[in-house]
Amino acid sequence: MMDTPLLLTSFLNRAERFFHAKKIVSRTSPTTIQEFTYKEYVSRTRKLGDALTKLGMTRGMKVGSFAWNHHRHLEAYFAVPCAGAVLHMINIRLASEHILYVINHAEDEILLIDDNLVPLIAPFAAQLKTVKHFIVMGDAVSLDNCPLPNAHSYEELLAAASDDFVFPEDLDENTPAGMCYTSATTGMPKGVVYTHRSLVLHSISLGLSDNTGLCENDVALPVVPMFHANAWGLPFASVLFGTTQVLPGPMFSPQILLDLIEQYKVTLTAGVPTIWLGVLQEQRQNPRDLSSLRLILSGGSASPVGLIRGFEEEQGIPFYTGYGMTETSPLVSIATYLTHMHNYTQDEKMQIRALQGLTTPLIETRIVNEEGEVPWDGTTMGELTIRGPWIAAEYYNDERTAEAFKDGWLYTGDIAVMTPDGYIKITDRTKDLIKSGGEWISSVDLENALMTHSKVFEAAVIAMPHEKWQERPLACVVPKPEFKDTITKEELLESLRGQFHKTWIPDDVLFIDEVPKSSVGKFLKAKLREDLKDYRIEV
Amino acid sequence: MMDTPLLLTSFLNRAERFFHAKKIVSRTSPTTIQEFTYKEYVSRTRKLGDALTKLGMTRGMKVGSFAWNHHRHLEAYFAVPCAGAVLHMINIRLASEHILYVINHAEDEILLIDDNLVPLIAPFAAQLKTVKHFIVMGDAVSLDNCPLPNAHSYEELLAAASDDFVFPEDLDENTPAGMCYTSATTGMPKGVVYTHRSLVLHSISLGLSDNTGLCENDVALPVVPMFHANAWGLPFASVLFGTTQVLPGPMFSPQILLDLIEQYKVTLTAGVPTIWLGVLQEQRQNPRDLSSLRLILSGGSASPVGLIRGFEEEQGIPFYTGYGMTETSPLVSIATYLTHMHNYTQDEKMQIRALQGLTTPLIETRIVNEEGEVPWDGTTMGELTIRGPWIAAEYYNDERTAEAFKDGWLYTGDIAVMTPDGYIKITDRTKDLIKSGGEWISSVDLENALMTHSKVFEAAVIAMPHEKWQERPLACVVPKPEFKDTITKEELLESLRGQFHKTWIPDDVLFIDEVPKSSVGKFLKAKLREDLKDYRIEV
Repeated sequence: MMDTPLLLTSFLNRAERFFHAKKIVSRTSPTTIQEFTYKEYVSRTRKLGDALTKLGMTRGMKVGSFAWNHHRHLEAYFAVPCAGAVLHMINIRLASEHILYVINHAEDEILLIDDNLVPLIAPFAAQLKTVKHFIVMGDAVSLDNCPLPNAHSYEELLAAASDDFVFPEDLDENTPAGMCYTSATTGMPKGVVYTHRSLVLHSISLGLSDNTGLCENDVALPVVPMFHANAWGLPFASVLFGTTQVLPGPMFSPQILLDLIEQYKVTLTAGVPTIWLGVLQEQRQNPRDLSSLRLILSGGSASPVGLIRGFEEEQGIPFYTGYGMTETSPLVSIATYLTHMHNYTQDEKMQIRALQGLTTPLIETRIVNEEGEVPWDGTTMGELTIRGPWIAAEYYNDERTAEAFKDGWLYTGDIAVMTPDGYIKITDRTKDLIKSGGEWISSVDLENALMTHSKVFEAAVIAMPHEKWQERPLACVVPKPEFKDTITKEELLESLRGQFHKTWIPDDVLFIDEVPKSSVGKFLKAKLREDLKDYRIEV
Repeated sequence: MMDTPLLLTSFLNRAERFFHAKKIVSRTSPTTIQEFTYKEYVSRTRKLGDALTKLGMTRGMKVGSFAWNHHRHLEAYFAVPCAGAVLHMINIRLASEHILYVINHAEDEILLIDDNLVPLIAPFAAQLKTVKHFIVMGDAVSLDNCPLPNAHSYEELLAAASDDFVFPEDLDENTPAGMCYTSATTGMPKGVVYTHRSLVLHSISLGLSDNTGLCENDVALPVVPMFHANAWGLPFASVLFGTTQVLPGPMFSPQILLDLIEQYKVTLTAGVPTIWLGVLQEQRQNPRDLSSLRLILSGGSASPVGLIRGFEEEQGIPFYTGYGMTETSPLVSIATYLTHMHNYTQDEKMQIRALQGLTTPLIETRIVNEEGEVPWDGTTMGELTIRGPWIAAEYYNDERTAEAFKDGWLYTGDIAVMTPDGYIKITDRTKDLIKSGGEWISSVDLENALMTHSKVFEAAVIAMPHEKWQERPLACVVPKPEFKDTITKEELLESLRGQFHKTWIPDDVLFIDEVPKSSVGKFLKAKLREDLKDYRIEV
């Protein structure tokens, strides 16, 4: 067989040959939506490759991006790796000290930055030791008064570049192509490096019928940011398959997302549950025509059953939960139905949709405890471990590698059970698990149950130290505004009693204003535990 | 990223974990249909690995299979390569001298053979220099009076073997896994060696929505033989995706195929046009319920538009033409619709379905003539060339490698045009092309036009030497039986005149009884030219 390397470059060539007339829609500001053909896109991407090379980009160099989802970011997604360099997609929602850390740690030498995000970097630009060039992206960039040193205008660079630029064909498929940092519970973010091979194989997996089945006929809207785990791989896969892309740009709202879906007849969209909660609420108030949507992919944290039902039953839109993380490119599993599940009752189906799903081809998962792999009984908890060709083998230049990567497996820190059908169900983070009297209590199960209560907006359940039981659950509940004054602890606890063993029922309910969240919308229960470290349960 | 090799072994492990209750249906004789769960299948496959290892199978050893499509062949499909050996799938329809050649040339040391096929090998078994063991497969094999030396019963070997056998995990992904020989126009067949990597990537491609979208919900019936280009990869991909498999066994007929489709609610089936012509005829006479079928895949040679219309319009079953060859694993392209084609008229759609289709992701195709790549105008002919990770780089130990593999590309010997949308349309074999007065005339286009004539059963158009024009087309036509005595040359030529330039109209029509065909049902036009070498066109 031919020794053909798996390279992202082949995606670009394919898009140029076959999908030149297809569209990329880019919302570049609250008032501007631009459309490009793939032909124009590839031409601009070649120009970017030329421009960056002229600026000194070499193979292996790290090039940072600090940007929303738009066509320029998509150009960088291919121009940098196809030239043999590494695109470091920086999470713009990190704390300043973390942004400073990741740019210095990755040793980014060029930084592509949205004009409206310059104020987030400018205060510490002088401390970015390795960055030689800042390239400012925007529709009408003026570098007058730009607070960044060595600043260039992206569009001016492109105007001076040639689309005759040819990306090298001699890259090894294991050449690093991209990197993302993931927040750590304590300490600085940890870096993950993707390769051409891993991104190619991951892209292909998104086209499988048993996963998302992304295809040329699709119109994909990645709400998940392009600085978050490769926007779940959608931008790469869309170029491969010639999928029409709708990139929602900066400062979008549920209204804007729904307008984009309706206007561009979006077929597939992806994002975190928090986004979909807002979208569902808006759609109920001001319904749009969403009949083009064949699939909403939700991940990053568990999807409440009420949310899934809202889309599937009210709106008639399939709502899939997936599981993944920065370390896994990210697709690991997705909650599609196996053949025998098509005969399930609607209630049973909704329970399946709320699971983290079935492991994708080419990836292996095991849920393990001290005794090895746990039985597939849906109740025995263990830590989820993963291996496969698009799973990280290490953190980039980081001693914490040894904590997560053992015996060829990634230890995720997620506590899960495996259903008899082989569906993963995350029950907790290792650090959030409540260990009460030798038994493991899933904070996530309790939260999900609380969040189905009609008076509850959000709920987080955390472990509180306990003399006798070591730990006991405390429920922290955000009521819906209209029930703020009338909701009672007792009615919430009573609603749980029918669903859980008595040892699982929280010892107390605390009403709070909001659950602290990470930059990607995940509950920050470590923060909640810290805030409440002096709280004492009333007994 | 983890350095995880792409191995077929992972398919087996995945099927065992997730799809243990799914079914493999195996028609092992005209009177027997057996059903196995994937759990039983994997258990038997491990036993086969154990049994073959005990017989002396080692890494790199060639193990031949000489068998129909059934569960035992499917067990060999995995047991041999997962143990690090190479399964040589021998075409049972080859001439005896070719069968003898390929087994000796591949140096098969073990040969798995169907009991009902023993008579095809027995006459020259003594000349098989490298074969140390014959393993006879069947439901009730008796070795009494078996004419083969060192014969074993497959089932007896399995009965004595253990399913605790563990396949190695340390194989390199470039380890040879399988091989097939392909018939040459002249001389002995040429061997192609597949690797684990190439078969894994090819399998994944069958699951892409833009190709066949094979998935867990499917029930696949490969009519294409397992000794012909890996049965187009369906057996491998079905194990990966947990697809229910229906293996049609020996001596099937259109009736039997239709019964299997109806009984097992087959969703996807694949085979050559000759098969589908018979199936369509039978379905018209004795209709079955085919409502489960979502896709018929046809390849190996061009599908007549009448056949496509018969399935799509009369039966309501999507009928996809694909293109591939033994050297390409085989999937290269498939005639799915691009987004803008969904608005085509029915006639336009049927023209698309008759093309060889759009090149699959990860594979590159170019149609080239002396001046380089031909324009995508749908008329300029050139030779189709292909490269990619599941395309052969050579023929196995064969000097003819240099004829077909040049500059990193496979030269297919097929003459084709590229439509403006990038769809491949095969117009001829290089050797069948008619070169008349400096112009290329496509024999295939003329044949397809003739075969849409209501009085024509089959037609082959070949080049005849011509003093002035170098070559001129001669049409060799098999009339439908009922028109045998009334059909005229003139009415056939008249029917062509409206469709082709006058230089393309054949100089003569010769009525024949049948078109000579290869072991896989392709027209043998070289044979026809040889038979007619003394024929002179009446002027």
